[in-house]
Amino acid sequence: MAKIPPRGFDVCEFENRLLRAQRQMQADGIDALLLTTEPEVRYFSGFFTQFWESPTRPWFLVVPLAGKPIAVIPEIGLAGMASTWIGDIRTWPAPRPADDGISLLCSVFAELPRRFGRLGVPMGHESHLRMPAGDFERLKQELTGFEIADVSLLIHRLRYVKSAAEIEKIAHICELTSDAFDDWPSSVSMGETEREICRRFRIDLLQRGADTSPYIISGSGPGGYDSIIMGPTDRVQTAGDVLIIDTGTTFDGYFCDFDRNIAFGHADDAVRRAYDVVYAATDAGFAAARPGATTSDVWAAMWGVLEAGGALGNSVGRMGHGLGMQLTEWPSNTPEDGTVLEPGVVLTLEPGMEFAPGKQMVHEENIVITEDGAEWLSRRAPAELPVVG
Amino acid sequence: MAKIPPRGFDVCEFENRLLRAQRQMQADGIDALLLTTEPEVRYFSGFFTQFWESPTRPWFLVVPLAGKPIAVIPEIGLAGMASTWIGDIRTWPAPRPADDGISLLCSVFAELPRRFGRLGVPMGHESHLRMPAGDFERLKQELTGFEIADVSLLIHRLRYVKSAAEIEKIAHICELTSDAFDDWPSSVSMGETEREICRRFRIDLLQRGADTSPYIISGSGPGGYDSIIMGPTDRVQTAGDVLIIDTGTTFDGYFCDFDRNIAFGHADDAVRRAYDVVYAATDAGFAAARPGATTSDVWAAMWGVLEAGGALGNSVGRMGHGLGMQLTEWPSNTPEDGTVLEPGVVLTLEPGMEFAPGKQMVHEENIVITEDGAEWLSRRAPAELPVVG
Repeated sequence: MAKIPPRGFDVCEFENRLLRAQRQMQADGIDALLLTTEPEVRYFSGFFTQFWESPTRPWFLVVPLAGKPIAVIPEIGLAGMASTWIGDIRTWPAPRPADDGISLLCSVFAELPRRFGRLGVPMGHESHLRMPAGDFERLKQELTGFEIADVSLLIHRLRYVKSAAEIEKIAHICELTSDAFDDWPSSVSMGETEREICRRFRIDLLQRGADTSPYIISGSGPGGYDSIIMGPTDRVQTAGDVLIIDTGTTFDGYFCDFDRNIAFGHADDAVRRAYDVVYAATDAGFAAARPGATTSDVWAAMWGVLEAGGALGNSVGRMGHGLGMQLTEWPSNTPEDGTVLEPGVVLTLEPGMEFAPGKQMVHEENIVITEDGAEWLSRRAPAELPVVG
Repeated sequence: MAKIPPRGFDVCEFENRLLRAQRQMQADGIDALLLTTEPEVRYFSGFFTQFWESPTRPWFLVVPLAGKPIAVIPEIGLAGMASTWIGDIRTWPAPRPADDGISLLCSVFAELPRRFGRLGVPMGHESHLRMPAGDFERLKQELTGFEIADVSLLIHRLRYVKSAAEIEKIAHICELTSDAFDDWPSSVSMGETEREICRRFRIDLLQRGADTSPYIISGSGPGGYDSIIMGPTDRVQTAGDVLIIDTGTTFDGYFCDFDRNIAFGHADDAVRRAYDVVYAATDAGFAAARPGATTSDVWAAMWGVLEAGGALGNSVGRMGHGLGMQLTEWPSNTPEDGTVLEPGVVLTLEPGMEFAPGKQMVHEENIVITEDGAEWLSRRAPAELPVVG
């Protein structure tokens, strides 16, 4: 196994993120960003905790046009935030429903220079505010001297291009998960349930050095499956079944996101053909993925192969997406997306199709865009559908 | 090990939840609820998927004043939602940034009877909207005939009292995690890192039948730890260290949430005393927990013991909370909360204190309120601080 990348980041990683953000804020006329979600706060601060699992308390990070970010957080987080590069940490005794950080937040904004009079809040596609909607209303009312501007695209674009240190973490979890998937068909057998198979896979990933697997789904059925976002269920695998496992597994807060398909006992021609088609579509997507091409070019390359291969449709709504601190990140490989690829962009290629009524075949790999093309981060799936037992 | 509870729920569980909700909606003058988060959607529909890990697509559930809930969801979720008790499922081809379900949602609201002219949306404490804030603004503008009313307390109160089937699932994961914690001190040794210890604990929980452990944190330090929400780190455990592990582990979508403390080599008197104090405080909280008492009574019982025991303070902000489909649920055990306990309420008792500058001792157990008192769901921690190696 390859060397394990170091945990965390050097301070210069956060300095670079901040400088890139502030340059864009200057261009867009934004005095400060107000961030509320786990990946946004972690991206700028390095604050990395599973405590976001508790929905009780809001957490805020303010990124000013000049100077370092300011953390406005529950008292319980002080020691943790103090271990990051953030120096200015304001706390309140949360939970305090009557004023859960809002007046403290307003006092921070009151201190900030107002050059543009605009406070940036992510409000667009693939964003949400992790704070009570009523408190956001109250904040807007109490905030003097600022109007609110949507900065979701600004944040998406910042996180879109990964640093070398980020790519190293993603590559590591992709490699480790590829190892697990390579050994996987030899460890499963007919008569097992999806749940048993997924549980063993989850344990195997941990034993290989993965941190967590927030996403391990499965779908199975005779001659194909009808969903790629549910499960695992107690469905027992029998001859003729096709099984998919898709996993988002992490190392140091960075995800892989890819899948593998197997058949039990035997696979009919339609299934084998569908596997070959999505496999070839993945290759076509990879060939199209290079700097200057767009997510829509990648989509078109894959869809051309699927259409020629008899696709009846695709209910996923896209064929891959950004990947990094979250299982799925902006942008999407769709006909309309049109985002231009750049070196350092990490993408999933996820061609999928309905090849018979109620039967899907979906394949997924992870790649990084390089100076002159792309590289695989996940190790390529078997060229032919593995048949177990 | 006890019998494994059945997965999922009978339809009558969802019928009861819906009836309780509709009775309260009638009383509060609410025509429909708009729900956007994983636990809210799952509570009324039974739709249970890890796919919420992907932040790209919004999901909506509409609960009308009469009749069954209506799912307004991305096409990718159709097969999964169709396997629940929900009959009316409207889909759109998400992701579609220009109109990600908003016009479809408006068309559903346009069909609903308007008796009160009020649409309920959770907007208060311990809630958030899992949809773009800009789309919520758009929805409010396009919505005709309804004003928005906050229903966070209505939802909190519904979920506050658990059914027998819910308690069975929580009790199961508490028992299984208690087994793991009982064996835990004998499996760790000095010289190991927090990360190694937590990884092995995570694997052990899976092998015992847990589904996932979204939350396994640790804190350690010489004579005490300074945080209970970070880690695990690569800190090596040496003689005199105190280590806490706190876990939120799940079975069938229901959480336990409790912790255990151990010392390595030896523990000084201050540490042992602090352990005894939080242990006694937990007993005092348990004794105070009965129908008719309030969360503030439980808090006061625990705080009295901590204060007498020399507590310098408590940065957690509360001493326990609701528990169920989420790691932490409404309400909080605080001086001001004052929520009246009822049979079927599941709570954590979590007395914690700073017993020396920068040194915390926190203990946590899980209980259920019964007709005439309370029962432990987690198996009581050792009465004395375990010392390892």
